[in-house]
Amino acid sequence: MEFKASQIAEYIQGKIIGDENAVIKGFCPIEKNEEGNLSFVANEKFSELIEHSNCSVLIVSERLLKDKNYKPTIIAVEDAYLSFQVLMNLYNDMIQDKKNGIETNASVHTTAKIGEDVYIGAFTYVSENVSIGKGSQIAPQVFIGKNVKIGDNCKIDSGAKIYDGCVIGNNCIIHSNTVVGGDGFGFQPTEKGFRKIPQLGNVILENDVEIGSNCSIDRATIGSTIIGEGTKIDNLIQIAHNVKIGKHNVIAAQAGIAGSTTIGDWNQIGGQVGIVGHISLGNQIKIQAQSGVNNSVSDKEILYGSPAISAGDFRRNYVHFRNLNNIVNRICELEKKSKEQSDE
Amino acid sequence: MEFKASQIAEYIQGKIIGDENAVIKGFCPIEKNEEGNLSFVANEKFSELIEHSNCSVLIVSERLLKDKNYKPTIIAVEDAYLSFQVLMNLYNDMIQDKKNGIETNASVHTTAKIGEDVYIGAFTYVSENVSIGKGSQIAPQVFIGKNVKIGDNCKIDSGAKIYDGCVIGNNCIIHSNTVVGGDGFGFQPTEKGFRKIPQLGNVILENDVEIGSNCSIDRATIGSTIIGEGTKIDNLIQIAHNVKIGKHNVIAAQAGIAGSTTIGDWNQIGGQVGIVGHISLGNQIKIQAQSGVNNSVSDKEILYGSPAISAGDFRRNYVHFRNLNNIVNRICELEKKSKEQSDE
Amino acid sequence: MEFKASQIAEYIQGKIIGDENAVIKGFCPIEKNEEGNLSFVANEKFSELIEHSNCSVLIVSERLLKDKNYKPTIIAVEDAYLSFQVLMNLYNDMIQDKKNGIETNASVHTTAKIGEDVYIGAFTYVSENVSIGKGSQIAPQVFIGKNVKIGDNCKIDSGAKIYDGCVIGNNCIIHSNTVVGGDGFGFQPTEKGFRKIPQLGNVILENDVEIGSNCSIDRATIGSTIIGEGTKIDNLIQIAHNVKIGKHNVIAAQAGIAGSTTIGDWNQIGGQVGIVGHISLGNQIKIQAQSGVNNSVSDKEILYGSPAISAGDFRRNYVHFRNLNNIVNRICELEKKSKEQSDE
Repeated sequence: MEFKASQIAEYIQGKIIGDENAVIKGFCPIEKNEEGNLSFVANEKFSELIEHSNCSVLIVSERLLKDKNYKPTIIAVEDAYLSFQVLMNLYNDMIQDKKNGIETNASVHTTAKIGEDVYIGAFTYVSENVSIGKGSQIAPQVFIGKNVKIGDNCKIDSGAKIYDGCVIGNNCIIHSNTVVGGDGFGFQPTEKGFRKIPQLGNVILENDVEIGSNCSIDRATIGSTIIGEGTKIDNLIQIAHNVKIGKHNVIAAQAGIAGSTTIGDWNQIGGQVGIVGHISLGNQIKIQAQSGVNNSVSDKEILYGSPAISAGDFRRNYVHFRNLNNIVNRICELEKKSKEQSDE
Repeated sequence: MEFKASQIAEYIQGKIIGDENAVIKGFCPIEKNEEGNLSFVANEKFSELIEHSNCSVLIVSERLLKDKNYKPTIIAVEDAYLSFQVLMNLYNDMIQDKKNGIETNASVHTTAKIGEDVYIGAFTYVSENVSIGKGSQIAPQVFIGKNVKIGDNCKIDSGAKIYDGCVIGNNCIIHSNTVVGGDGFGFQPTEKGFRKIPQLGNVILENDVEIGSNCSIDRATIGSTIIGEGTKIDNLIQIAHNVKIGKHNVIAAQAGIAGSTTIGDWNQIGGQVGIVGHISLGNQIKIQAQSGVNNSVSDKEILYGSPAISAGDFRRNYVHFRNLNNIVNRICELEKKSKEQSDE
Repeated sequence: MEFKASQIAEYIQGKIIGDENAVIKGFCPIEKNEEGNLSFVANEKFSELIEHSNCSVLIVSERLLKDKNYKPTIIAVEDAYLSFQVLMNLYNDMIQDKKNGIETNASVHTTAKIGEDVYIGAFTYVSENVSIGKGSQIAPQVFIGKNVKIGDNCKIDSGAKIYDGCVIGNNCIIHSNTVVGGDGFGFQPTEKGFRKIPQLGNVILENDVEIGSNCSIDRATIGSTIIGEGTKIDNLIQIAHNVKIGKHNVIAAQAGIAGSTTIGDWNQIGGQVGIVGHISLGNQIKIQAQSGVNNSVSDKEILYGSPAISAGDFRRNYVHFRNLNNIVNRICELEKKSKEQSDE
């Protein structure tokens, strides 16, 4: 695919400076500096690269432009970052080839209800009484257990496993090798060893949930583990049984949430954070990476540390921690003086 | 499936208060409060929900009952939590449809020895000289390498990969996408780069081991990585080459154990804990979540922190850490006074 | 396979003490003490086990030998560890049966270019325009997306997923269930929720890269996520979008690197380490396990702690942290004395 600068400018309503017939065949970051490519500059830091860039066309935020002779064709817009994203979305829609139909080597049970325009890839296993809503794309090598319901326009990537009775809303994305609905980790200790507690519940993903690759979302013991509408989950994340997560949360890679904890809406949870079981988090909370949360948290708090405390306090105290050697020397000095004074 | 209160009461030897013909069709947590469902109350915290609950039947610990007119049918027992679990186990056995036979699209090598009543799902790959004991259930899309031995009554979930020469005992459960017997991480540094050290050993899981989803259990360099009888491992856990874990340990999600470390029996290892290589842990140890253990540990210790120290010490010192700003202010004050006194 | 002591001694140019016709059938660690096996002793710690070992043949570093009557046949060499590794490499080459050809149940698109001596296992899915270089071994149940390029002599294990447009160099190893080229975690916050930012870039693995099991290596938003030549990555590791890693790095299990961070050459990153996004690390840096790096790092630094500081400082200060209770008592004592002195 090729595009002219004039086509792009028209689409994002920008102003052309230079050759409106310049042609681009792809995208690249500004640092890559490749002819035939489109890039953008929205950040002062990169503004020096504009003038002599080998990129054929650059989308630039107006405020970064000066009265110069630019080598590339410039498309001036108010916010180059936003305009570039609009283009990327357009491009993404163009290259997405939504597939259709069931590939020869898929195993789909006769009782499964498959909606219109659904794609099911080879080596995917669809069990009894599954329903898959219209337009959903199920990649090769996916496993879907009995009685699973998948909504419309979902995308389930290769190797994802969805266990019996789980419910996936509309427009959900589940990346490769993520496991939804594995058994929760529940055992009754006895003198002879641990006895497995049956895990009879399920997992519910509400609409517009996205889950990264290699995540483990365990089914509830009874009832449901729930991920609320619009919540986005990165890779390698552990969500234990009976956790309830609200709407529009963002959870970064390798975080883990222990059993029966409830989390509200619009929270930001950093990478490698651990949250203990049976507590309750409010809304609009920010938890810094690697923190360990072991108490319930109120709305809008910002936490840091393991165990986690107010991020401001943590940072202030950590400065002193880094200085403890010096602090102890000061105490020694005081003790010496105090001894001298009492000896006098 | 439907059950009458009288059937349930008989099975768990409870006393009925109310309508013995009340019918339930499923389970729910007491907070969900759904008609037609059975729930239980074993905790004072939820005792106020008993009287007006919409659940059709409630199993309640005797001590929580008062002389009231309860809306649901009550089944009074000594310990409602235990009685409920007994029922869940029964229900679990009823709904488990143990499958049988090899599905059409499985690939099973002619030299493999498959026991009686074994199920092998579609798209599962069974290599040369594998043996699988009677009653074991191998889900679709599993990979089993050459010379692997799997015992009786095991359950291997979809997407699990078990590499050449590994040995799985009886009654083991391996959840989806877990990898047993991948190469250990061993390299010889040279001036030109790192040279791979062959990983020629295997992994042995003794009887009654359960491993969650997305775990990596690496094969030994030579000899065996061993997980002892009855040990239960949660999701997303790393067990490195030549680790030896004893019996009846519980290891929570996202923990990692580095190479050649040995661990005794009945230990509890928290979520996201890291344990360095080449050390030795005793028995009945508890390690708090996110701790980093870098020295050998004696029996019954309780550890916390990174690096981990006695949990009591860690908590006491962390209280002071949270207060370091104030502590430093006190030192400044003392220095000021000391200076005044020496100036006098 | 069986080997005589004389064959082994000749291969590693060692000197035989004892029966040169002793026969071994396998390897074992010295502690396992199994007849018919070969082991080695390179470490003083195990030198007492040499004399009475049941192993049939032992390779021993010369300096550990005394003038004794050894039960096993001894092969004396300068460095027993190195000599043993040479043998393991030889053995590994002997037992590796490089497979050849495409198994019946694989799905390979007609446009894919498959080199000589390539093996593609059953239930593996190869998409449009893929190219696979000569001698590469693709295990069963692998997914390879459109336009992926895989070099010569690679080994891709069962369940690995490689997404559209990714590029894998020569001699790369990717272990089971690792996902290369999943979407980066990028969202535009809006009032109604998070809007997905298309992830249009790819992942490039240079030559001689090895990646363990259950890792997630995300594709770049635009441009490439890059893992440099000879870099070795353990299990369960997160590499976010647009990360650039240089040559010959070693990254231990469960570490995570956030978006757009660049890392130089010959660094050692410990287990469960977290590195924030948009920073730059130099060369020959060592980061201790569980550390959290949130600032750029110069060459040869050694870091520890969360947030990470110089490892020497961290250790010194942590000694004081462990002693904070005592330190606070000393301050109380000083305050008491100070008060007494001012009261006088």
